[in-house]
Amino acid sequence: KAQAAADQQQAPEKINQAPIPMKMDRKGTDVFIEMTAQITNIQIDKNVTYNAWTFNGEAPGPLVVVNEGDTIHFNLKNMDPAVPHSMDFHAVHAAPSKKFIDVMPNEEGNFTYKASNPGVFMYHCGTKPVLAHIANGMHGVIIVKPKNGYPTDKQVDKEYVIIQNEWYREKDLDDMTNGQPSQVVFSTKALKEGMPNTNGDTFTLKEKPLLAKVGDTVRIYVNNVGPNRVSSFHVVGTVLDTVYLDGNPQNVLHGMQTVMLPASGGAVVEFKVVEAGDYTIVTHQFNDVQKGAAAVLRVTED
Amino acid sequence: KAQAAADQQQAPEKINQAPIPMKMDRKGTDVFIEMTAQITNIQIDKNVTYNAWTFNGEAPGPLVVVNEGDTIHFNLKNMDPAVPHSMDFHAVHAAPSKKFIDVMPNEEGNFTYKASNPGVFMYHCGTKPVLAHIANGMHGVIIVKPKNGYPTDKQVDKEYVIIQNEWYREKDLDDMTNGQPSQVVFSTKALKEGMPNTNGDTFTLKEKPLLAKVGDTVRIYVNNVGPNRVSSFHVVGTVLDTVYLDGNPQNVLHGMQTVMLPASGGAVVEFKVVEAGDYTIVTHQFNDVQKGAAAVLRVTED
Amino acid sequence: KAQAAADQQQAPEKINQAPIPMKMDRKGTDVFIEMTAQITNIQIDKNVTYNAWTFNGEAPGPLVVVNEGDTIHFNLKNMDPAVPHSMDFHAVHAAPSKKFIDVMPNEEGNFTYKASNPGVFMYHCGTKPVLAHIANGMHGVIIVKPKNGYPTDKQVDKEYVIIQNEWYREKDLDDMTNGQPSQVVFSTKALKEGMPNTNGDTFTLKEKPLLAKVGDTVRIYVNNVGPNRVSSFHVVGTVLDTVYLDGNPQNVLHGMQTVMLPASGGAVVEFKVVEAGDYTIVTHQFNDVQKGAAAVLRVTED
Ligand SMILES: [Cu+2]
Ligand SMILES: [Cu+2]
Ligand SMILES: [Cu+2]
Ligand SMILES: [Cu+2]
Ligand SMILES: [Cu+2]
Ligand SMILES: [Cu+2]
Ligand code: NA
Ligand code: NA
Ligand code: NA
Ligand code: NA
Ligand code: NA
Ligand code: NA
Ligand SMILES: [Zn+2]
Ligand SMILES: [Zn+2]
Ligand SMILES: [Zn+2]
Ligand SMILES: [Zn+2]
Ligand SMILES: [Zn+2]
Ligand SMILES: [Zn+2]
Ligand SMILES: [Zn+2]
Ligand SMILES: [Zn+2]
Ligand SMILES: [Zn+2]
Repeated sequence: KAQAAADQQQAPEKINQAPIPMKMDRKGTDVFIEMTAQITNIQIDKNVTYNAWTFNGEAPGPLVVVNEGDTIHFNLKNMDPAVPHSMDFHAVHAAPSKKFIDVMPNEEGNFTYKASNPGVFMYHCGTKPVLAHIANGMHGVIIVKPKNGYPTDKQVDKEYVIIQNEWYREKDLDDMTNGQPSQVVFSTKALKEGMPNTNGDTFTLKEKPLLAKVGDTVRIYVNNVGPNRVSSFHVVGTVLDTVYLDGNPQNVLHGMQTVMLPASGGAVVEFKVVEAGDYTIVTHQFNDVQKGAAAVLRVTED
Repeated sequence: KAQAAADQQQAPEKINQAPIPMKMDRKGTDVFIEMTAQITNIQIDKNVTYNAWTFNGEAPGPLVVVNEGDTIHFNLKNMDPAVPHSMDFHAVHAAPSKKFIDVMPNEEGNFTYKASNPGVFMYHCGTKPVLAHIANGMHGVIIVKPKNGYPTDKQVDKEYVIIQNEWYREKDLDDMTNGQPSQVVFSTKALKEGMPNTNGDTFTLKEKPLLAKVGDTVRIYVNNVGPNRVSSFHVVGTVLDTVYLDGNPQNVLHGMQTVMLPASGGAVVEFKVVEAGDYTIVTHQFNDVQKGAAAVLRVTED
Repeated sequence: KAQAAADQQQAPEKINQAPIPMKMDRKGTDVFIEMTAQITNIQIDKNVTYNAWTFNGEAPGPLVVVNEGDTIHFNLKNMDPAVPHSMDFHAVHAAPSKKFIDVMPNEEGNFTYKASNPGVFMYHCGTKPVLAHIANGMHGVIIVKPKNGYPTDKQVDKEYVIIQNEWYREKDLDDMTNGQPSQVVFSTKALKEGMPNTNGDTFTLKEKPLLAKVGDTVRIYVNNVGPNRVSSFHVVGTVLDTVYLDGNPQNVLHGMQTVMLPASGGAVVEFKVVEAGDYTIVTHQFNDVQKGAAAVLRVTED
């Protein structure tokens, strides 16, 4: 355990690249996205920094939001001096052996594909061993907004993104394969400028709650990026009035206490908060809460 | 292992409070429920007694059944001399920071909320660390009967409740967080007076089967209270003709061999038994069956 | 670890029975199936052979395909000289204590039941401890074709079966109960003569991909036979346009990135491949991919 603690301390010689922001432009239904694979220190617990493999210095990576039917023109720059990286968007139809391929260190790659299905999709580096690339931080969420919206759009007052991921002993593939995660964490990503945008850690969303007002219907775009655990997504103090599995408007469930999310599974969940106070968001697999997986939604009168 | 066995033997000085029955009264749609947090020995295996934290001396706690739309007036007495406890009903809309709060040792708390969603909901102590409070026995089920019933109500001949929970090495939070459960168990709770009502153990529902007749359509209200494992709920020898996820009449599946239950997930499942004999109910994650998770349904000619 | 490696080497004195093919005949809606429980070496990894308990010398066992409404007349011969075996078809309604019973070594048993529900069902030996009989290789899939087909039948161009199962240290019940699987594997079974038909191993479906053409809609009948793990079934590079949970035409989901399969859970999944290249099929619980769980679908122009 002392060794593990020592391993998790940041070695001074490790590369730590300042985050390069993602770029995104749109011309009609053509969307131009530039992302960077880079090595950046991420604080994952009060006293633990992880020398992460990231997209754009965030882990999970930056939120991508496009429209159903958009064509994505994707540019990936790899600033990692030693390891190839790549991008697998779950939202697209593309031959992985051509469009999700490795970009070598200090090179870049360009890929084009359509986002033809609405939903809350995972993205991740697909370079082998994929387990290590995801566990080291190369994961995120792409939301594809449905052409005709959700039937419940008009009732929704607040919208947030929540992502669940695991952290293992740093860079230890054995531990990722056979061990228990050291941390299981939640993060949020900004849907609009000024909204909170966090890395996956054990404390931020407890100390700085998400906010809503009494009477609000809150929508959460959620994805469990794993790499290994399934999630039993639950909001304490309410019932999920509407759930769209994987965020597809056709996959509707009602009145759910808890949503089962496979590894890489997503959902749009909506619920009404009728009373002021703090509501904890968890995976109801409580050993993962014990390792960090909780966020607070603070509801105030006005 | 010798140490674990020793740990699990009941120390003579441990508190063991005789079960106080739950009280429940109704005036119109106002339901008055009194429950007691107490420390009671629960036999969980042939030679293992667990000095459990319980609701009313049962683990899982007593079954609560209310109607959709009811207002619950809930009183929690805490007889535990040392540890605060609380109550989180998944069935209700309530600010957890106000209505699911800790009741101190030897005190009581009163809380009011509505049960506005039909289903098979988990309840549990929500005091931190929640993992320990659930794993030590503070969990149960509240059924909220749908206002207009289930579309299949008329076909159902027998109804039972089945709950899945795990037991860990007694009071060992490390083991709850990282270890394997020592036992995974099923229990049943009485829907009416005279029906079987058991604690979560490895043997009772094998030795004293639930009963049905040839030709019966059997309904089971099931919930997997965890705290950590998901469940692959299955009845050997039949197919689940109708499944209502989380017990909501709107979430219907047909012809399922197995239902995926997240931690805290529930369902109403219905199936017809066409032949006399013994039908084993399991989670199809068979390592959990190896640890105890099975019950028998005995079907007789008449 | 040296001991484990030694355990996994094939001892020369172990029984290794040549596979006896399954027999299947039909007269109207009466189907006559003969299967054999036998001990056969199965190669599960490049350098690992498992002295498996099998149906007909395959693990998973031979694919069974019947029609909704068929009556199955099942004959099980047990060639295992020492251990009783049995058969539990998830597809049928039958009293397990009469029709899923043990067949003693060197004996045979005859059982009749109806396959009244359409779907992609698991079958397995149901002899205690069931965990060991499944983990040692006694599992497979029975497809019950729906009377009126699937609404999407006409769009489908290629059909395959994929099964996920785990392998543990050979014959080690402790490891099956508490340990991590040594391998998690995929296999395919031939729907027609000449199609690939493999055992559950870590390499064959990577080296000899399944095949499709650009523009094809591919259907996969999938089941996760466990015995312990759940599966997050995913096809890299596409979205599952249509999913029928447990293969029942009534349980439809659309546009899913990943399907949650409980232990013994099945599905029919359909997706279109729009570009030539290699598409990897995985469980998105990537520690299981690290242990072998992947298959390749190769899509060519023509
Ligand atoms: Cu990468
Ligand atoms: Cu809860
Ligand atoms: Cu408690
Ligand atoms: Cu089974
Ligand atoms: Cu067997
Ligand atoms: Cu993926
Ligand atoms: Na609203
Ligand atoms: Na809740
Ligand atoms: Na009936
Ligand atoms: Na069955
Ligand atoms: Na087609
Ligand atoms: Na994909
Ligand atoms: Zn990478
Ligand atoms: Zn609600
Ligand atoms: Zn609806
Ligand atoms: Zn408590
Ligand atoms: Zn049936
Ligand atoms: Zn229906
Ligand atoms: Zn067997
Ligand atoms: Zn598609
Ligand atoms: Zn549809």
